[in-house]
Amino acid sequence: MQTLSYSSQPPSPNTPSTPHQQSRNSIRLLSGILAVNILLLGSALVCGAAFSKVKVLSDEEIHIYLTILLILTTAWMIFYMVHTASRTQAVLYKDSHAGPIWLRGGLVLFGMASLIMDVFKTGYSTGKLNCESPVKVTFPLVQLVFVVVQTYFLWVHSKDCVQKQSNITGCGLMLTLATNLMLWMSAVTDESLHQTREEYDSQTHFLPVIILAGRSGCECTHGACEIFEKGFYYLYPFNIEYSLFASAMTYVMWKNIGREIDDCSPHKISFRTKGVVFGVIVGLLVVIAGLGVFVVYEVEVTGDASKERVLIMYYTFCIVGLSLMSLASLAGSVIYRFDKRTVVSTKNPTRSLDVALLLGAALGQFLISYFSIVAIVAEKATRTVSMLNLTCSCLIILQLCLQNLFIIEGLHKQPYHAEPPVVSVVFINEGTSRSNPYSPSLKNDNDEPSPVENSLERSSHSHDFSSTTHSSSSRMSWKRRALKEISGFLLLCNVIFWIIPAFGARPQFENGLEEWVYGFSMWVAIVNIGLPFGIFYRMHSVASLFEVYLTS
Amino acid sequence: MQTLSYSSQPPSPNTPSTPHQQSRNSIRLLSGILAVNILLLGSALVCGAAFSKVKVLSDEEIHIYLTILLILTTAWMIFYMVHTASRTQAVLYKDSHAGPIWLRGGLVLFGMASLIMDVFKTGYSTGKLNCESPVKVTFPLVQLVFVVVQTYFLWVHSKDCVQKQSNITGCGLMLTLATNLMLWMSAVTDESLHQTREEYDSQTHFLPVIILAGRSGCECTHGACEIFEKGFYYLYPFNIEYSLFASAMTYVMWKNIGREIDDCSPHKISFRTKGVVFGVIVGLLVVIAGLGVFVVYEVEVTGDASKERVLIMYYTFCIVGLSLMSLASLAGSVIYRFDKRTVVSTKNPTRSLDVALLLGAALGQFLISYFSIVAIVAEKATRTVSMLNLTCSCLIILQLCLQNLFIIEGLHKQPYHAEPPVVSVVFINEGTSRSNPYSPSLKNDNDEPSPVENSLERSSHSHDFSSTTHSSSSRMSWKRRALKEISGFLLLCNVIFWIIPAFGARPQFENGLEEWVYGFSMWVAIVNIGLPFGIFYRMHSVASLFEVYLTS
Repeated sequence: MQTLSYSSQPPSPNTPSTPHQQSRNSIRLLSGILAVNILLLGSALVCGAAFSKVKVLSDEEIHIYLTILLILTTAWMIFYMVHTASRTQAVLYKDSHAGPIWLRGGLVLFGMASLIMDVFKTGYSTGKLNCESPVKVTFPLVQLVFVVVQTYFLWVHSKDCVQKQSNITGCGLMLTLATNLMLWMSAVTDESLHQTREEYDSQTHFLPVIILAGRSGCECTHGACEIFEKGFYYLYPFNIEYSLFASAMTYVMWKNIGREIDDCSPHKISFRTKGVVFGVIVGLLVVIAGLGVFVVYEVEVTGDASKERVLIMYYTFCIVGLSLMSLASLAGSVIYRFDKRTVVSTKNPTRSLDVALLLGAALGQFLISYFSIVAIVAEKATRTVSMLNLTCSCLIILQLCLQNLFIIEGLHKQPYHAEPPVVSVVFINEGTSRSNPYSPSLKNDNDEPSPVENSLERSSHSHDFSSTTHSSSSRMSWKRRALKEISGFLLLCNVIFWIIPAFGARPQFENGLEEWVYGFSMWVAIVNIGLPFGIFYRMHSVASLFEVYLTS
Repeated sequence: MQTLSYSSQPPSPNTPSTPHQQSRNSIRLLSGILAVNILLLGSALVCGAAFSKVKVLSDEEIHIYLTILLILTTAWMIFYMVHTASRTQAVLYKDSHAGPIWLRGGLVLFGMASLIMDVFKTGYSTGKLNCESPVKVTFPLVQLVFVVVQTYFLWVHSKDCVQKQSNITGCGLMLTLATNLMLWMSAVTDESLHQTREEYDSQTHFLPVIILAGRSGCECTHGACEIFEKGFYYLYPFNIEYSLFASAMTYVMWKNIGREIDDCSPHKISFRTKGVVFGVIVGLLVVIAGLGVFVVYEVEVTGDASKERVLIMYYTFCIVGLSLMSLASLAGSVIYRFDKRTVVSTKNPTRSLDVALLLGAALGQFLISYFSIVAIVAEKATRTVSMLNLTCSCLIILQLCLQNLFIIEGLHKQPYHAEPPVVSVVFINEGTSRSNPYSPSLKNDNDEPSPVENSLERSSHSHDFSSTTHSSSSRMSWKRRALKEISGFLLLCNVIFWIIPAFGARPQFENGLEEWVYGFSMWVAIVNIGLPFGIFYRMHSVASLFEVYLTS
C-alpha cells in the first residue's frame, strides 16, 4: 500500500499555502485514515477466516462485511452522479490524462467477465440455499449491481477534478478504493484456498484442518452446480483484474480532488505507421510464434508425457522473446542518451502515477521470478526445464528493469512534433496549474517574465527549434525512426506476453519445483498475488509504449 | 514498502526541469530498482528457509547473503566518509530537520544493545562451532563492525545533502536501506520462530516439521551457551528497533541527495515550562501510575493465579490513560479551529517524511488492535479481561487517530514566536530552495515582487503581526497555554506508553484469546511486526509533541 503523505503534493516553494491547499491536505488525511481502517479491519476478518485453526470466523462474516461495503459504496456513487456532479461549478476541470481509453476499455471487459461470474455464483449459492447462509446469495447479487454502477461511474467520471463537496467526495472515493482492495484481497484468498483444496484432492493427501474447513457437507439441489462452480473459479482472475483497474482509476480521481487545471486538449499527434516496418514485422512474428506456443501449451500441458516437452517449448519461446525485448530496450535507452529533446517534467499527478503504477506493478513479476530463482538454485536442479526456467526468470527481471527505464525516459521527453507555438500554450497551462486561485488564468503575452523564467523559456524555445530543425535533417529522422521501430516492437511483444498469462497459462504450477520447495499453499499465494499485477503491468506498458511511439 | 515514484518531488510548476533535476530523478530510479531487487531476493531466501517444508534452504544461505550485504554496506560507508564527504563542495548544505537528536540518541541506545546481542550471539555460536557452519560465527562479528560503523556514519552524516558523486551515494544509501530492512526481516522471523518453538516446548505438543527444523542435535561445548541464548533473544527487540531507526535516517539522507537548501539555523525558540502546570502534573501522575502498573505486571504476570488480576489492572490503566489522551487531543484539535496562525507548508521533505513516518508507524498498532477486536467479537468472549481488552483496542485506534490529527496540525502551524524579520528570512531561504542552480541565492529587498507574491507576503506579514499582537493579549495566551498544557500532557503519556512495551510487557501473549483464534505462529508474527512499529511510533510522537510544545 502506498504510504499516505500529508503533503505529498507540496505547493510550489515560493508561495505560502492557501486555505485551498490546506483543506485539500486535511481531506486527504481524513479520507486516508478512513481507508486504512476499513482495510485493516477487513484484513483481520480475511486472515481470521482463512488461516484460523478453530473456525471462530467463517466466510459468512466476511461476506456480510463486504456486502455492507458494497452497498455503502454503490449508494455513494449514485449520490455523486445524481447530486454532486450535477451541481454548478462542481466539476470545472477535467484531467485529460486520467482514465485513458485502455484503462476504461479494460475495466468494461473485465467488468463483463465479473458480471458473468456473479451470475454463476448466485446460481451456485441458490442451489445450496437449504443448508448455507442466505448471505452467500445476497453477496453476488449486490456485487453485480456494484459492478454495473461502478463501471458506469468510472467510465463517465474518471477524468473529474471535483471542486465542490470535496469532503464527502474524498471519503467516498477512499471508501470505493478500500472496497475494491477488499474485494481483491478476498478474491485472491478464495482462489488460493480453492486451488490448494483441488491440489490436495488430486493427490489424496492427508487433509489439514484449514482445507477441510472450506468443504461443508452441504449438497446442491440442482444439477448445474458443478458447471457454475467451474465457471466462476475460471472467471476469478478476471474479477481480480477488474478490482485492480478500478482501484487505479479511483486513486487517480482521489488525487485530482480540488486540482485546478484545464488541459482539455491533449497534444494532437497523428498516428502514422509509415516508414516503420522492421520493428512491426519482427514484433508480429513474435506474436504469431507466441500464439502458436500458447495453443500448443494449452492443448498438451495436461498430459503427463508431453508436459516436459511443452514446458521446454514455452520457456524457449520466453527466452528468445525476452532477450530480443531486452536488447531493444537497451538500444532505445542508448539512443535517448544522444537525444537532445528537452524533458517535460511539469507537475502532472497522472504522469507520476503512471510511472508509479508501472514500477509498482512490475513488483508482481519480480516477486515470482526471485522466488523461482531461489528455489532452483537452492535445489541445485539440473533438469533442462529447471535450467530454462532459471534463465527465463533472470531474463524477466532484466527485461522489466530495462523496459521500465526505456518507457519512463520516453514518457518524459517533449514530443518531436511540438512546434514553438505549442510551447507557449504549455506555459499558459502551467500558469493556471499554480494552486493559487487568484492567479490570472491566462498569462498575457505582454507580461514581463522574470529574468530566470525568461532565460529558461528562451532556452527551451531554442531547444525546440533545434529539435524541429534536426527532425528535418536525415540524422535526426534516423534516431526517431529507430525509436519508433523499438517502441512498436516492444508494444507487440508486450501484447503477447499479456495474452499468454491472461488467458490461463500457468507454467508456474506445471513446473512443480517451486511448489515442492515452498509448499503448495505458499506458492499459490505468491503466484495469485504476483500474476495479476504482472498482467496489469503488461497492459499498462502496452499503453505507455503506444504513447512513446506517438511522441517519438 | 513505499512505492517508488520517479517524480515524487516534481519541480515547481513554472520552471521546466533542469539537468540537475533530471539527474536526481534518474539516480532515484536506478537506486530504487537496486533496493527492490536486494529486498525481493532476500524475501525469497527468508520465506524459503522459514516456511519451506523440505529443508532445501537453511539459515546458512540467509546468513551468507546478509554477511555479503553487511560487508558491502560497511565498505561503502567507509568509502563515503573517507572519500566522498571529504571532497571539496561534496556537502555544501545541511538539512537541519534531518537526523534530530531523539533519532540519533535512540540509534546509539539501540545500537549498544545490538552490540551486546552480537557478542552474545558470537559466544553462543562459538560453542557450537564443532557441529555448525562457521558462517554463524562470522555473521555476528561482521554485524558488530557494521553496527559500529553505521552508528558513527549516521551520527555524523545524517544531515548531509550530498552534491558530488550522487550516483554512487544514491546506490550506497539504498544498499544501506535494503541491508537494514533485510536485517529487520530476518530478526522478526528469527524471533517469531523462536517464540513459536518455546510455546510448543512449554505445551509439549506435537511438533510440526517447521519447528523441528530449527532444532539441530548440535550440543554446545561450553557452559555459558544457555545464558548467551537467553540474552540474545531478550535483546532481539532492541536490534529490530535499531534497524527501523537506521532505515528511517538512511531514507531521509537518500531523499536529500542533490537538495540545495541552507537552513543551518533552525528557529531558536526557548524552552520554557513557566505557567504550564496542570498538564504536566496530570501527565506525571499517569507516568507514575504506569510505572507502578508495569512493575506489578512484570512481577506477577508469570503466576497463573495472579495473571487475570494483573491483566485487569493493566487494561484498566490503559483505558483510563488512553481516554484522557483522546480527550486532550480532541480538545487540542478544537482549539486549533479557532487558531488564526498561518500554516507553514513550504516544501520540506523532512517534515513530509516526519508526517509519513508518524502515520506509517501507527499502522503497527492499528494492525494488532484490529486483529484483537475481530478475535474478541468473533469469539463472543464475555470474560472481564476480554471486554477490557476490547475496550482498550478500540481506544487505541481512536487515540492514535486523534493524536495524529493534533500533532500534524500542530507541526504545520507557524511558531508563535516568529517575529516579522524572521518571515523575511524564510522568504530568502525559499528563494534558494528553487531547484534552479542559476537563480540568485539571495533575494534583494529592492526586487519588485510579483503582485501575487506581494499580496501574499503582505497578508502573511499581517497575520504574523496579528498573532504577535494577539499573543500579548490575554485571550491568545489562554489558547497558547491550553495548547502547551495539552502537548505537555500528551508527551508524558506517550513516554509511559513507550516504556511499557519497550521493556518487555507483552499482554498480547498473556491474554491467550487471540493466539487461540489465529493460531500461535500467526499471532506471534502479527505482534512481532506490529509492536516494534508501535514503539517507534511512541518515540516519534514524543519528539513531535515536544516540537508542538515549543512552537505553541
